[in-house]
Amino acid sequence: MKETAKETSKEKKFMDWFTEILQTAEIYDYRYPVKGCGVWLPYGFKLRELTLKILRELLNETGHSETLFPLLIPENMLQKESEHIAKFEEEVYWVTRGGLNDLKVKYALRPTSETAIYPMFSLWIRSHRDLPVKIYQVVNVFRYETKTTRPIIRVREVMSFKEAHTAHATKEEAEKQVEEAVQIYSKFFDKLALPYLILKRPEWDKFAGAEYSIAFDTIMPNGKRLQIGTIHYLGQTFSKPFEIKYEDVNGQQKYVYQTCYGISGRPIAALIAIHADERGLTLPPNIAPIQAVIIPIYTKENREKVMGYCKEVFSLLKDNGFRVKLDNAEDETPGSKYYKWELRGVPIRVEIGEREVEKSEVTVFRRDKLERRSVKRGEIIGELKKLEKEIHLNLKERAWGKMREKIRLTRTLREVIKTVEEGKIAMAPWCGKNSCIKEIENETGFNVLGTPLNVEPPAENCFNCQKEAEKIIYIGKSY
Amino acid sequence: MKETAKETSKEKKFMDWFTEILQTAEIYDYRYPVKGCGVWLPYGFKLRELTLKILRELLNETGHSETLFPLLIPENMLQKESEHIAKFEEEVYWVTRGGLNDLKVKYALRPTSETAIYPMFSLWIRSHRDLPVKIYQVVNVFRYETKTTRPIIRVREVMSFKEAHTAHATKEEAEKQVEEAVQIYSKFFDKLALPYLILKRPEWDKFAGAEYSIAFDTIMPNGKRLQIGTIHYLGQTFSKPFEIKYEDVNGQQKYVYQTCYGISGRPIAALIAIHADERGLTLPPNIAPIQAVIIPIYTKENREKVMGYCKEVFSLLKDNGFRVKLDNAEDETPGSKYYKWELRGVPIRVEIGEREVEKSEVTVFRRDKLERRSVKRGEIIGELKKLEKEIHLNLKERAWGKMREKIRLTRTLREVIKTVEEGKIAMAPWCGKNSCIKEIENETGFNVLGTPLNVEPPAENCFNCQKEAEKIIYIGKSY
Repeated sequence: MKETAKETSKEKKFMDWFTEILQTAEIYDYRYPVKGCGVWLPYGFKLRELTLKILRELLNETGHSETLFPLLIPENMLQKESEHIAKFEEEVYWVTRGGLNDLKVKYALRPTSETAIYPMFSLWIRSHRDLPVKIYQVVNVFRYETKTTRPIIRVREVMSFKEAHTAHATKEEAEKQVEEAVQIYSKFFDKLALPYLILKRPEWDKFAGAEYSIAFDTIMPNGKRLQIGTIHYLGQTFSKPFEIKYEDVNGQQKYVYQTCYGISGRPIAALIAIHADERGLTLPPNIAPIQAVIIPIYTKENREKVMGYCKEVFSLLKDNGFRVKLDNAEDETPGSKYYKWELRGVPIRVEIGEREVEKSEVTVFRRDKLERRSVKRGEIIGELKKLEKEIHLNLKERAWGKMREKIRLTRTLREVIKTVEEGKIAMAPWCGKNSCIKEIENETGFNVLGTPLNVEPPAENCFNCQKEAEKIIYIGKSY
Repeated sequence: MKETAKETSKEKKFMDWFTEILQTAEIYDYRYPVKGCGVWLPYGFKLRELTLKILRELLNETGHSETLFPLLIPENMLQKESEHIAKFEEEVYWVTRGGLNDLKVKYALRPTSETAIYPMFSLWIRSHRDLPVKIYQVVNVFRYETKTTRPIIRVREVMSFKEAHTAHATKEEAEKQVEEAVQIYSKFFDKLALPYLILKRPEWDKFAGAEYSIAFDTIMPNGKRLQIGTIHYLGQTFSKPFEIKYEDVNGQQKYVYQTCYGISGRPIAALIAIHADERGLTLPPNIAPIQAVIIPIYTKENREKVMGYCKEVFSLLKDNGFRVKLDNAEDETPGSKYYKWELRGVPIRVEIGEREVEKSEVTVFRRDKLERRSVKRGEIIGELKKLEKEIHLNLKERAWGKMREKIRLTRTLREVIKTVEEGKIAMAPWCGKNSCIKEIENETGFNVLGTPLNVEPPAENCFNCQKEAEKIIYIGKSY
């Protein structure tokens, strides 16, 4: 599919806005002198850390252990599983020189870590007592992207790939692990107030080496699908070439069953783009690097009084566990401070001037709804804690609402095409045969996103062949 | 210098022990199929995280902001500062291929990040109001080591390089920053209970691009110096080629003054080797992944009673913020559990059997002194908190004592040589002329480690030329 001039211009406008706001909000600077590589700035780094913390907690409390594997993968390891290398050989960066010498063995920069981790699994796993193994790591991974790169969204160095790898004695246990991963990722995206579809990918779009792949997709403001997480059932695809065997209770050697699942930096791109408005970011309070900013409003005459009160409120918030900042810069007006912190998405602003001091209250502004109200001093903590929950809920509901508006039920091929061309995602009843969807992908350049899990077959006919529908299929444009 | 057969065998024995204990204590598995690369195992990963946490806190509270820069450095950036590239060109891994294509521009895997970070500094720094800039990152860095690699100690992928980079308006401020860095690193190593020397490196051993380099060295059990941290005053070496300029208060364009300082994974290697005894690791309580392990000792008859009491003690410790494990494995004897947790360096063991339940107490074993005593139930928390401090202090004093024993004051060249050949570090009065020390390094293969900061000139003569001494110099063998 060729994009129309209008579409190209729309996409460019969105990407210009996105790239610009990442930089002005001090999240990520994309001017690094290597294509597809950027720098996480201090404020963005904290956002990234707070986001990572949530996922780490979810993984740790479900029995995953964090580890760290090397970046370099020897060529012969990367090649051990044939489907895997077939998919990745066009996307891998190769280290071929060390110092002034050519290396005898080429090393791949990991595009993902199956072939780095599984040789170690084969050393570690001996007996059924060693199973299950559930590990994860947070690392940089590399893809030699030939498509147009996009800050955070499509990069050549993914700077915090969170990948989990598990090994199990039986198929059933491994498939149960897939379900657990779906639960974990759902909770994670809920905590980022992000809406998502959980879709089983079509055969031709599954992970290289997987028996099947389940993906979390969200929809960006411009209507494009963004994949934000994937979960793969690997079966014994890797355990056989990598010789990952265990002795079962009867003393028999068996190959393990495996799963893996990963999330890149994209959820941060999604939450920035999806929760933003014309003033800039709006961050969910639980991951906002600054949850509340206090802005003093004073004249020469009442400066001391106002600042004193601000400091008291600051200590009160800090002591109660809020990530709070008192913006006491002398050379900026309150208005310019409002502008700056709204741009960066601080969810709560506390304004304090003469009136607030006199009445022993504060003025609270919520970033998501742009609403102001007065709060009595004695009630600040309770009100702000309540407000944080309200903001989170509002962001989440608003985002889910926006996503639903971008999905349309379609019943014919014509409707599907019209819907996607309008910048929406088409949801259509489908007979279940690949022939009915593969041809669309080939002819239109749209993406077949997949089928939702655990959904009853609709009592309708296939949008394409008009035979009885067995599934629902999603089709749209994609990053 | 050629090593004698005896030395080689001693070193091999130490390294065999070290490699083995890293694996059996589940810190780091060196069997990864790329030379000089290993895997951080879950227990080791936690140790690494707790260690990082301490350094992050020290850096954050002194106004450093954490960031994250790309791994790949374009060849032309790496080459911008001539001394820098001259030093690193033999040690750098090069990415030359992407997918099936040769790249037009070669990328270096960062050996350190000056040339990745400073192009961005030149974009960020405009005015004196932007200064100082104090940032850091924790990243993987790469060296194509041609010397024998050693797990954690000399690797090809340093998996957690903690590097800080600062920019200042004046020389004075930059040199003050060097002092701050010395303070920060001193506190960091104190918290790891590690002994250290703070030495200004000789001219020929400073960092490529630095005006001078200050290093933290510790001494390993085999008498070899291990560099565990370095601090560099860069002056304007990099700010000129990278065009990092600011407008001063008078509107004039000036180049910034810079510093950088870094710590690799080596402190963990040091604390493992230095605090260990014949039973295995001994970890300082503040960084131990498990601070106290509870071992139940029961028979079939009293199992329920003993386990109930163990669980109560477990909850008590957990609620009071201890990282505690109750080892309730059914298929291991208490003795084998003792062995396992002693090997892994858990600083406190709590033994609970019939007697302890009856007398409403616990038996506490401290790993460092291998001593046991009874503690009344009501006093557990207070006693364990006290004990943690005592263990830390004891490990620190013991380690400092051991280091001092390995340093000998020497007054003649003969004494220096004899001392170093005995596996010790020689400390000698020195006239200050490079000719007196450079020749030693060349002739013996020993390393001149450097001169201590802020030490009065000794009232002695130079160990080599016998002229009046101006400084103290340290000489030894080195990793």
